[in-house]
Amino acid sequence: MNGIDNQQVEQGSAFVPKFDAQGLLCAVAIDATSLEVLMVAWMDAAALDRTIETGLAHFHSRSRGKLWMKGETSGHVLRIKEMRVDCDQDALVLLVDPAGPACHTGARSCFYRRLEGGALVRAS
Amino acid sequence: MNGIDNQQVEQGSAFVPKFDAQGLLCAVAIDATSLEVLMVAWMDAAALDRTIETGLAHFHSRSRGKLWMKGETSGHVLRIKEMRVDCDQDALVLLVDPAGPACHTGARSCFYRRLEGGALVRAS
Repeated sequence: MNGIDNQQVEQGSAFVPKFDAQGLLCAVAIDATSLEVLMVAWMDAAALDRTIETGLAHFHSRSRGKLWMKGETSGHVLRIKEMRVDCDQDALVLLVDPAGPACHTGARSCFYRRLEGGALVRAS
Repeated sequence: MNGIDNQQVEQGSAFVPKFDAQGLLCAVAIDATSLEVLMVAWMDAAALDRTIETGLAHFHSRSRGKLWMKGETSGHVLRIKEMRVDCDQDALVLLVDPAGPACHTGARSCFYRRLEGGALVRAS
């Protein structure tokens, strides 16, 4: 935290992202136009740096243990329009312009099912 | 996973939430009306069960290591209108009707600052 106290973390202008014990924070990508939640993924410091440098969403794959750019194989990149950080700086919201379906299944959003009476049903 | 394969996890109707090594999954609360992202928090199995049972968002506090109901002290509960799950079932979106500001700072959303040129500025 570089000597920055809690009040500064919550109210200040210094960006001091708080990574968890695994070195990760949670990033929520939403469509900048429709506000639909597209996907939730993880960033380590390297992914965050690459995202800021390139303007394209990069994440850290927990299963593969490596940096990846969203859309690196599909072409369905997420172009960053704005980044927001929460009060304690351990989560990000990415307002993005998606180049195609955000989900690897081909769905526009990964959140294509809702929970209803204990089971999942197609949401839209 | 109870013998459920990847195809079933992604396309099926069985709700089989995938908790991480810490027993948690990420939950994104959004305002069901405005679609604004209000907060990101964590659920373990107990928090998820309580949320489903009560219709009020419950989370697991990573810092305090315990179950909490959002609004248990402030009264600013988050009433669940709909729950969505992502493709691999390790993240949830909660569409909620908030009883007050979602952030403990008094802000409507925890995401009240945007990143601009390396610094944070008040977003709205």
